[in-house]
Amino acid sequence: MKNLFTFTVIFFAMAQIGFAQGKSYYCPPCNNACDELVFDKPGKCPHCHMTLTDTKTDILNVKKMKIAFYLQDGVEVLDFAGPMEVFSYAGFEVFTVSKTKAPIKSQGILKIIPDYSIEDAPQADILAFFGGNASAASEDIQVTEWIKRQDKSLSYYFSVCTGVFILAKTGYLEGLTVTTFHESIESLRKQYPNLKVLDNVRFVDNGRIITTAGISAGIDGALHLVTKIKGAAMAKHIVEYMEYDKWKPGEGKIMD
Amino acid sequence: MKNLFTFTVIFFAMAQIGFAQGKSYYCPPCNNACDELVFDKPGKCPHCHMTLTDTKTDILNVKKMKIAFYLQDGVEVLDFAGPMEVFSYAGFEVFTVSKTKAPIKSQGILKIIPDYSIEDAPQADILAFFGGNASAASEDIQVTEWIKRQDKSLSYYFSVCTGVFILAKTGYLEGLTVTTFHESIESLRKQYPNLKVLDNVRFVDNGRIITTAGISAGIDGALHLVTKIKGAAMAKHIVEYMEYDKWKPGEGKIMD
Repeated sequence: MKNLFTFTVIFFAMAQIGFAQGKSYYCPPCNNACDELVFDKPGKCPHCHMTLTDTKTDILNVKKMKIAFYLQDGVEVLDFAGPMEVFSYAGFEVFTVSKTKAPIKSQGILKIIPDYSIEDAPQADILAFFGGNASAASEDIQVTEWIKRQDKSLSYYFSVCTGVFILAKTGYLEGLTVTTFHESIESLRKQYPNLKVLDNVRFVDNGRIITTAGISAGIDGALHLVTKIKGAAMAKHIVEYMEYDKWKPGEGKIMD
Repeated sequence: MKNLFTFTVIFFAMAQIGFAQGKSYYCPPCNNACDELVFDKPGKCPHCHMTLTDTKTDILNVKKMKIAFYLQDGVEVLDFAGPMEVFSYAGFEVFTVSKTKAPIKSQGILKIIPDYSIEDAPQADILAFFGGNASAASEDIQVTEWIKRQDKSLSYYFSVCTGVFILAKTGYLEGLTVTTFHESIESLRKQYPNLKVLDNVRFVDNGRIITTAGISAGIDGALHLVTKIKGAAMAKHIVEYMEYDKWKPGEGKIMD
């Protein structure tokens, strides 16, 4: 806290100097204290390392994206944890939802208490689905109906691995190009012949609906969605922070 | 279950044919049904895709490694979830331990119920520590004492990100070469001048103690430890399963 206070004092002082001398530069919104700072020279923000811009974003009017992580019992741990890491650093409001509020077990190991059930979960901007026993959720009519109730106010759907089967049940994927876990490509094709299911692709972006390949590919899909919503500088900042220099931007299929 | 039954029947039939004709080939232990199968030709296991060997491993006598994930309140979600995915597919027995059994919150989002407290956690073969509010655990003498009580029967220590600060408090790292989260390199050097702290390295392996860089680097460190314990074929199998083709084996510093 002491460091944060010192940092804030120094940069507010810098802000005043910059403001007095002429042209001002700002940090792109990143949910850190530096969102409020003003600099007198172009360059990188010394706090979050993003490139400064000459346009001030009114952060109070930047909508904080709400993303609901639907976690079924048996959900694959890295499927959701990779995207959770990414979206939380993008400043999204992340919460977990399950069929009920009873604890679930991820990967047969990790005991999780969901924030909400499908009965009381708030409206989200993004719904996210993950693999690992996804068939239980995809065959549950109450889960499908919950997704349909959210649809009208949703900005994006996001699925990792076999989480796509939960989404497919709604019918919203009909006619679209999608992807899934490598061992489930054939079964998705058979079960939903009206989908074009790609293999050997990290993610597929249909505009409103993004589906990714298996397990670790969720990280790349999440970085792609952050790039769409908050720009490449934010995605690059997250990649550097989480030391995921293996990331190759755009390593997926973006549909027209 | 029906598919598993069919699979088992077919492969036990194959096994009998192979056994009758001469030389036999086996799947390396992978905690799947194929561990028990016998094949009549060399090649890949059609179930787990590992290369068959001509040496049968007595899986009943293969010790199942027990790995305790110490999770403090505020633990970084990808720090532990990446290694949890890797170690669970390696067939390790993974369990979670925290100071008490009270639920903790990872990344300020994910509510987790620990399996054990430091009072009742069973003896592990590997102790693993992760970043995200690691200072709370590193400054807790009861946590340090718990680690010391486990030491005598431990095979390995494993830390991701700033989890190394928890380990450093025991004194066991004195004189060793280690690594940590990129933003904590300098503070680790200052706090522990007898450690050689490397930057720009994915992990450092001192034989019994493996430390990794930040957040996503835990995946690579875990794959390295699996390679040491169960061989490169198992690590490669996990990498293919979790679609982490970005993995570069040995992308770390292995000390003599």
